[in-house]
Amino acid sequence: MSQTVYDVIGVGNAIVDVIASCNDAFLTDQDIGKGAMTLIDEDRARELYAAMAPGKEVSGGSAANTLAGIASFGARGAYIGKVADDELGEIFRHDLNAAGVDYTTAPLVGGPLTARCLINVTPDAQRSMSTFLGASVFFSEDDIDAEKIASARITYLEGYLFDRDEAKEAFVKAAEIAKAANRLTSLTLSDSFCVDRHRAAFRQLVRNHVDILFANEAELVSLYETGDFDAALDAVRAETRIAAITRSEKGAVLIDRGEAISIPAEPVSKVVDTTGAGDLFAAGMLTGLARGLDMEASGRLGAIAAAEIISHIGARPNISLRELAQKNGIELGG
Amino acid sequence: MSQTVYDVIGVGNAIVDVIASCNDAFLTDQDIGKGAMTLIDEDRARELYAAMAPGKEVSGGSAANTLAGIASFGARGAYIGKVADDELGEIFRHDLNAAGVDYTTAPLVGGPLTARCLINVTPDAQRSMSTFLGASVFFSEDDIDAEKIASARITYLEGYLFDRDEAKEAFVKAAEIAKAANRLTSLTLSDSFCVDRHRAAFRQLVRNHVDILFANEAELVSLYETGDFDAALDAVRAETRIAAITRSEKGAVLIDRGEAISIPAEPVSKVVDTTGAGDLFAAGMLTGLARGLDMEASGRLGAIAAAEIISHIGARPNISLRELAQKNGIELGG
Repeated sequence: MSQTVYDVIGVGNAIVDVIASCNDAFLTDQDIGKGAMTLIDEDRARELYAAMAPGKEVSGGSAANTLAGIASFGARGAYIGKVADDELGEIFRHDLNAAGVDYTTAPLVGGPLTARCLINVTPDAQRSMSTFLGASVFFSEDDIDAEKIASARITYLEGYLFDRDEAKEAFVKAAEIAKAANRLTSLTLSDSFCVDRHRAAFRQLVRNHVDILFANEAELVSLYETGDFDAALDAVRAETRIAAITRSEKGAVLIDRGEAISIPAEPVSKVVDTTGAGDLFAAGMLTGLARGLDMEASGRLGAIAAAEIISHIGARPNISLRELAQKNGIELGG
Repeated sequence: MSQTVYDVIGVGNAIVDVIASCNDAFLTDQDIGKGAMTLIDEDRARELYAAMAPGKEVSGGSAANTLAGIASFGARGAYIGKVADDELGEIFRHDLNAAGVDYTTAPLVGGPLTARCLINVTPDAQRSMSTFLGASVFFSEDDIDAEKIASARITYLEGYLFDRDEAKEAFVKAAEIAKAANRLTSLTLSDSFCVDRHRAAFRQLVRNHVDILFANEAELVSLYETGDFDAALDAVRAETRIAAITRSEKGAVLIDRGEAISIPAEPVSKVVDTTGAGDLFAAGMLTGLARGLDMEASGRLGAIAAAEIISHIGARPNISLRELAQKNGIELGG
């Protein structure tokens, strides 16, 4: 096995979020499905942006948010993802490096713009996302740094990348490198619609490559095409070693081979913005597993990180998750 | 007099804010004066940005914030300012248009990047600003739309523009057009260090062109080189018709020819972020004056808008100032 340099390396869509307020009529006018993630092209991105209220720009991307969380726990993280050589790309790179994540993927030159997720927030705090994937899916197998992947305890893959064939191939290559290096591979299903679009490929990946699966209830029942949560749990149990199924305020169910462990949600005085809850649950869970904690402590780290993220606007932590873990009696080694 | 199209037209530095958290040691290491606004060049902007924590990007610029506030009151505003033809420039344009402000200045091609203000926020909520002026000061007299200025009741000028000669000339031209069109000209001094750098030019502008002056205490005493607030008030009284001197939690003193009127600060349950307090006081005051309210009601609109802005992060209003004015018993005509 290669020398271990990283606890976790993430492969994901490098995206900048553009967040603005709207009312329900705006969603209807713009034909945006409330609470969903819809893929849009560049023309539509321009048209929708022109219609949106004043916004704020913050770095996003599901796996990138997770890696920022892992770095906040003091663990060593790296990231592979593609931005363009434009200003939003520079912002994305800066923010991830500044969070303490190793990120060196070369920017795309002469292609589409850096990906952006246009997020319209209704007064009920629901977020409706319209994503222009832009440069983020233009990474190829060349961008997959085999040495870094082999040196990471866990390779973490973001399901959203399945939305373009070239990215999917790079993604599968990353899983194969991790497996060949005797490392663990983890996947998050990302979105139930994404699972719908690529169910067969996801099923194959889960069976053949995935050691640790992250999903929420909707994604899991979509993967196994069953309306029954317990049937879906049985199905995933047969196919992966570890699964973490998040259930919002009901906490999470962890599967460790046969055994099921229930992790209660961490209490929050006020839920301000649920974006990133799943990303940060994964951050805590992966940090725990990479550092050799047991399933229950790892799940608790996930619940602690998710609770922090939903107590403020934005999908990256505002405070040190390492200190927060310590306050909760969980010590993470150097 | 031309037909009136706008209540207020603003001329200012078109800037995007990059806001990040830091500790006091960071300010010391980076040699940043706490709470001040320092001008930096592009190399320094890159170096400082590389050292900063993850940030968020929001449109800023003092006069642009004021115009966004004026539009939120339902008044008709226009803006003249220069961005580059880059992504931050597009963001700035989008946000101002989306706020309801007419903004059509052509972007700068082939010059420096869109201006950015790197804002480091210490745990005591103080903001230290390092500004790379970039494209914002590369506007020339050609960008001054004489027709728009002549059609606005008040032309509002941002003192920060004095930091480059070409911009200053365009600025003086705007004041001359307004005067020739029998319109009112207003100036905000922007920053006591900016006043220090350009005292003689400011004094001349105030004497010859300015009908409505905005300043805080530090700026006013710097303009008249006196440590005594009352002496500075006497001096300004002799030189402009109307002056609005803001005094943070002590409210504001308005001068209307001879008369002095005290406007108490509007109570706020919690001061979250004082950025934009002066910009939004100007928004309320200018809206009131443009719509024919008396000094006291205009000052109250200013206090109401300032209180809204300091109760949340960011220097542009989160809610409709028009509705807030109505709740406070102040009706603004169509």
